[in-house]
Amino acid sequence: MDVIRLPRRVSIIGSVAVVGKKEFEGPIGADFDLHDDTEMFGMDTWEKAESEMQRRALSLAIGKAKIDATSLDAIFAGDLMNQCTGSAYGLKDFSVPYFGLYGACSTFAESLMLSSLMIGAGYFTTCASVTSSHFCTAERQFRFPLEYGGQRTPTSQRTATAAGAAILSAENAGKVTITEVLPGRIVDKGITDVNNMGAAMAPAAVDTLSRYFHATGTNPDGFDLIVTGDLGIEGHGILCDLLLSEGIDVRPVCNDCGLMLYSAESQDMHAGGSGCGCSASVIAGHVIKRMEKGELRNVLYLATGALMSPGSLFQGLSIPGIAHLVHLSV
Amino acid sequence: MDVIRLPRRVSIIGSVAVVGKKEFEGPIGADFDLHDDTEMFGMDTWEKAESEMQRRALSLAIGKAKIDATSLDAIFAGDLMNQCTGSAYGLKDFSVPYFGLYGACSTFAESLMLSSLMIGAGYFTTCASVTSSHFCTAERQFRFPLEYGGQRTPTSQRTATAAGAAILSAENAGKVTITEVLPGRIVDKGITDVNNMGAAMAPAAVDTLSRYFHATGTNPDGFDLIVTGDLGIEGHGILCDLLLSEGIDVRPVCNDCGLMLYSAESQDMHAGGSGCGCSASVIAGHVIKRMEKGELRNVLYLATGALMSPGSLFQGLSIPGIAHLVHLSV
Repeated sequence: MDVIRLPRRVSIIGSVAVVGKKEFEGPIGADFDLHDDTEMFGMDTWEKAESEMQRRALSLAIGKAKIDATSLDAIFAGDLMNQCTGSAYGLKDFSVPYFGLYGACSTFAESLMLSSLMIGAGYFTTCASVTSSHFCTAERQFRFPLEYGGQRTPTSQRTATAAGAAILSAENAGKVTITEVLPGRIVDKGITDVNNMGAAMAPAAVDTLSRYFHATGTNPDGFDLIVTGDLGIEGHGILCDLLLSEGIDVRPVCNDCGLMLYSAESQDMHAGGSGCGCSASVIAGHVIKRMEKGELRNVLYLATGALMSPGSLFQGLSIPGIAHLVHLSV
Repeated sequence: MDVIRLPRRVSIIGSVAVVGKKEFEGPIGADFDLHDDTEMFGMDTWEKAESEMQRRALSLAIGKAKIDATSLDAIFAGDLMNQCTGSAYGLKDFSVPYFGLYGACSTFAESLMLSSLMIGAGYFTTCASVTSSHFCTAERQFRFPLEYGGQRTPTSQRTATAAGAAILSAENAGKVTITEVLPGRIVDKGITDVNNMGAAMAPAAVDTLSRYFHATGTNPDGFDLIVTGDLGIEGHGILCDLLLSEGIDVRPVCNDCGLMLYSAESQDMHAGGSGCGCSASVIAGHVIKRMEKGELRNVLYLATGALMSPGSLFQGLSIPGIAHLVHLSV
């Protein structure tokens, strides 16, 4: 399977991040378009708040792109909640053809990939990619009741309260383009520690990234930034080490959305951020804006997902990982 | 949003259905490729059994298509289990680029649609579409422990124990082709009764089908079969009535996978079958085979999904529906 080069220009004409309190207080908080310190976004449950974050992110992105919602040809969206209800309820009132995705924390890259491929093929002119996660919905669903106040292990990552939306178009309006994509394969190296998902996902990132470099004949030096999402401090180290053993040194240009979202010094987030909304907000809210300003020109975005469920872990299964790659250029 | 006509020939070169006991005993049971009366498929949990059904369905489809698994360019797959683990664990060992989808019971049409669009665009040559559901995993997750022996209401549908897989290719080998697709929009008419999902999904089917007829200038007479999946007896009646009020009479050619899978006379299945595996097995195991034999030539397959979760219903939300359309021709 080779890297797919898009046959026509696909650009990002509007990108937005909507976040919670901790994300706004982080080192790139000023880049985000909207935040709510209560993390409720006017709703009466966390789950409805997560849907509302997606709705607002897409509404704002449509405004930024200076288009009408009716000119959207399709939405590609997903989230971590059971049956992906964050997306379905958040986006249902746009009345736009809808493709539901599940790629765990890799969903934003999967949605950018499919949006850009469909536009590249000429099927659609304008598509939206939207994903989200919410710390409270994820804790309730995957871990413990918040009231329990459970201790977290040092390798655990914090699910970001964040949503990202990007509008992609064949029109010549956006500075940032998607030029290539490489879909990931599922890789399962037998990790069973749900508090160390970086370790479970890093081998998938290695698989995709080394396939990319081999197929394109490029190396890390050619990029301003290679940004994974979300391996955290554990997985990031494993990725760098494993690639180094293959003779690829990504360390000078490699960062991770889970590490960029929170301050390691002033915010106690253990191994970093995670969740579909983590890399979605860092890419849509921060990286794309830096590219539009000309601060970055050539970026590999590699979103990783851990494809287990609480049920599969209770039954003794290990954690399969996946990593989808999107090449962003100015 | 218009109907998308595929720019090059995309044919189905292998299709397989793997089912449980009740599905094998139903009126089209003889068409299915593999069944297991224990519904365990050699595994020690229902969830692992569902993954195993996907693995076997894809393995058999690869064999029928006379290809090597390594020649698959991508898999598009999904299921009903939380975090779509039926697909991730069932398909991880194929080591093929993987796109995870969530469209509830519409997932098989969503996967056929994306597979055929990617092949039609020339990005891929050969793709697989795979989905599944399992009565016992669905009851455990969505309803009651099986041991409880709860009574079901007459409008409720039975989640099929079934998996379907189809191999799609740009090579000229298959008789059955996908010629057109129309992605669905989310439609929510305020239905909150989880035991009447046919009623929740029927308006989405009406939306997609009437858009299709208007865009193409066709009418139901032009088709040998218009097959929904899975509205059941309630939703099927609502679909026919609503379309009739728009002046479209689908009754002479319209059937529903949920009604085809079980016998209304000899099997007590209330409103019919449902679940991602229901329409997947009826289409991959039965309809495509009838088309290959020349018994059907021109079929509209319209898979419907109910995009709620138990959690969203507990919070008082209604059930959003979606319906994706795939036009199959000989």
